[in-house]
Amino acid sequence: MHQRGILIVISGPSGAGKGTICKALLERNKFWFSVSATTRKPRKGETEGISYYFLDRKEFVDRIEKEDFLEYAEVYGNLYGTPKSKVDEMLDKGIDVILEIDIQGALRVKEKVSDGVFIFILPPSMEELKNRIIKRGSETPESLMTRFKSAYQEINYVSKYNYAVVNDTVKEAVEKIESILIAEKCRVDRIKETILESKEGLMHEQLYD
Amino acid sequence: MHQRGILIVISGPSGAGKGTICKALLERNKFWFSVSATTRKPRKGETEGISYYFLDRKEFVDRIEKEDFLEYAEVYGNLYGTPKSKVDEMLDKGIDVILEIDIQGALRVKEKVSDGVFIFILPPSMEELKNRIIKRGSETPESLMTRFKSAYQEINYVSKYNYAVVNDTVKEAVEKIESILIAEKCRVDRIKETILESKEGLMHEQLYD
Repeated sequence: MHQRGILIVISGPSGAGKGTICKALLERNKFWFSVSATTRKPRKGETEGISYYFLDRKEFVDRIEKEDFLEYAEVYGNLYGTPKSKVDEMLDKGIDVILEIDIQGALRVKEKVSDGVFIFILPPSMEELKNRIIKRGSETPESLMTRFKSAYQEINYVSKYNYAVVNDTVKEAVEKIESILIAEKCRVDRIKETILESKEGLMHEQLYD
Repeated sequence: MHQRGILIVISGPSGAGKGTICKALLERNKFWFSVSATTRKPRKGETEGISYYFLDRKEFVDRIEKEDFLEYAEVYGNLYGTPKSKVDEMLDKGIDVILEIDIQGALRVKEKVSDGVFIFILPPSMEELKNRIIKRGSETPESLMTRFKSAYQEINYVSKYNYAVVNDTVKEAVEKIESILIAEKCRVDRIKETILESKEGLMHEQLYD
């Protein structure tokens, strides 16, 4: 039974720990990690096709017109987007694809990929969320409070997702995501056709062999 | 976060291996196994409250009138049913309940418990299904073929279920069911309220402590 791969979207507020979870998921499993395209110039140490696909603005805009992005956005004058053709290629091969993306991006992807699995990563507590935001940068107390309040507000978007996983420990969160994937592969909505087709085949063998 | 237990309905055609899977699930996990009520007389070795709740016909009919059954049916002159109050009591305590039941019974339960998890157990192949049906009993070739064809037809009901698990090996099937349960406990539909409530509580601490 060849099953199409599943697009797993890992998303959630800044500071919830999406990046660490995705890194741990990739170490343990056979996923393909979706790489973004950008018009931003490569920084030192960044590799084409691994860090990003680096495109010039004309190429990027051409691809937008060809609808080759699951979503895209402009941030501080640079375009960023999730290339559709590469994701589709992997899914067609039966390989599951992980996409780590912010909430606004995830909601745009959801409009196009309704059978994706949308997982919202929650920080273990607001206290911990604040600590993580503090650890990240040398920001002023005001900008920290703004970022914290914004992350707090973002938690309301959980209702747009299929699953919510609390990032108590990375190990537990990764195990839950792996269970979600196993469960999704047993969902009747996804495999009904395959079951009914294979049933017909088997009955045929049974009766006429 | 106190979460209500989940009603897990294990169902599927005769010969798929429901009973073996439920037994293995109960050995590995902390579930409560729903015990049926019946008006049939106890057989040797059967224990009240473990094999069945044995009721006389008047008691059973009283309970039907009080709507204390998730489902019931009459088979060869005896009534069989799934008591509702006991299942609710366990779910309220946060304990997951397993109900092993045939397809017709499962569909009746689904009308009443829409947030139950309905899992359809599939035999590894039609060949294997036939072998298992043959193993069970000293039936005539005609009645075997009837039972096999009926089990074959029953597979069409898979589309009414949430999940389908192929019983290749009991170990793998049990692991899949355990993953399904972990995933269900992360479903946003089930835990949205809890997340948003706990968010409010934590923000309050954060700002005013």
